[in-house]
Amino acid sequence: MAVGWFYLSVLVLCSLGLMSVLSTIYWMRYWHDGFAWDGSLLMFNWHPVLMVTGMVVFYSAASLVYRLPQSWVGPKLPWKIGHAATHLLAFILTVLGLHAVFDFHNHKKIPNLYSLHSWLGITTIFLFACQWFLGFAVFLLPWASVWLRSLLKPIHVFFGASILSLAIASVISGINEKLFFSLKNGTNLYSNLPSEAVFANFSGMLVVVFGLLVLYILLASSWKRPELGMQAERQLLLQLGPGSWPFPVTDMSVPVSQPYEPW
Amino acid sequence: MAVGWFYLSVLVLCSLGLMSVLSTIYWMRYWHDGFAWDGSLLMFNWHPVLMVTGMVVFYSAASLVYRLPQSWVGPKLPWKIGHAATHLLAFILTVLGLHAVFDFHNHKKIPNLYSLHSWLGITTIFLFACQWFLGFAVFLLPWASVWLRSLLKPIHVFFGASILSLAIASVISGINEKLFFSLKNGTNLYSNLPSEAVFANFSGMLVVVFGLLVLYILLASSWKRPELGMQAERQLLLQLGPGSWPFPVTDMSVPVSQPYEPW
Repeated sequence: MAVGWFYLSVLVLCSLGLMSVLSTIYWMRYWHDGFAWDGSLLMFNWHPVLMVTGMVVFYSAASLVYRLPQSWVGPKLPWKIGHAATHLLAFILTVLGLHAVFDFHNHKKIPNLYSLHSWLGITTIFLFACQWFLGFAVFLLPWASVWLRSLLKPIHVFFGASILSLAIASVISGINEKLFFSLKNGTNLYSNLPSEAVFANFSGMLVVVFGLLVLYILLASSWKRPELGMQAERQLLLQLGPGSWPFPVTDMSVPVSQPYEPW
Repeated sequence: MAVGWFYLSVLVLCSLGLMSVLSTIYWMRYWHDGFAWDGSLLMFNWHPVLMVTGMVVFYSAASLVYRLPQSWVGPKLPWKIGHAATHLLAFILTVLGLHAVFDFHNHKKIPNLYSLHSWLGITTIFLFACQWFLGFAVFLLPWASVWLRSLLKPIHVFFGASILSLAIASVISGINEKLFFSLKNGTNLYSNLPSEAVFANFSGMLVVVFGLLVLYILLASSWKRPELGMQAERQLLLQLGPGSWPFPVTDMSVPVSQPYEPW
């Protein structure tokens, strides 16, 4: 039953993430003529797809690496490299998504970075970049002391979750903005809720549901790599499958007084 | 120093909350002719003010009740009543904010609930209502068992933080939407970043900074009422002031196996 809960959650999470990406692609293909990489409006269409894929779905997958029971035992380094590499992939997709909208704006002589959506979005990406470089420098490179890592880990976890929340707020305001741009003529008004509006609104709500589930697993579930000293107990748990979810036993941080396992 | 950190944070939080509310009022007074309660556009102007005040600032204040060191010792019931009452006040302000926009729409024959902003906003308010009634029924009324309360508390805390995050996403998409409505004529385009756009964008970013600080204190700080058995230790801490912030020692939940203090 416990193992069932875990794999059911993985299945739900993967389905929601895939549906979020596919519905954004479908929105852009069906109502906005698909994609190109030429500075036209078809280049803009990559923006929502790459942002939802990179900044929400891949970012979430990268964040949840340590929630896989397979990561709870054995050396931590390969999982750290996996965590950093998947986040780097998410970051590259995000930068491509940013490039898509900047190039379209520059081509059409539309100013960049004026809306609150863009201010929040660019802040989120800046925080993501800081978080990645700080994480790489402190948690992957070997110079940082155990004390420093213990000190920064809860802050790293908090900002990890915050950046995802800000990304979701950016996605919501972006979809809303795009629909007001597209649906403003004749009977095809956003306020008349044409099929595109209903579809894109549902896509936005899907991203919200996906994000909330990711944050729940990240912050409030018991699927966590244990600190040193609890390894043997968790090894047993691993054989049985993760046990107590959905009844969480949470510790979002590494208390400074507890041992910290660098690798 | 430790006491200094705590009171500095309270000061920063109160200032940011007050500035969020005042800047929304100023936005509506200076650029949109102030307020009325008559179904006109001046009635709509109450909507952003009441939403930021109720759904973000009062909601946050209500959520942080148990982070006050004064609440860490002595009977819990008065603090629970304070928590529920302040949340009820936040909810009433939110419903008034909802009434302001619905009445304006009905008066002007504008459809309700078509934008993604409104879909997310109404979902957030629905979750807030469920959260309040469930919290009241389980944590304030005396019938629920300690087991049930222990089980639901981490879920209550998680949804409390999630509802605030969704409220902030709603505020961001709402400010963005309002600016696209208002700044669309002649030289007064949103994309030209007139003074209103800069001011309202900064107000939105202020709400985001306020929300992140609230979430940090709520989820990742050590300013928490201790469980039974840690009371004596915390009583000493109370005399010294909260000690370890900003280096958090976090436990977002009440593990089922730990004693739970109903009152």
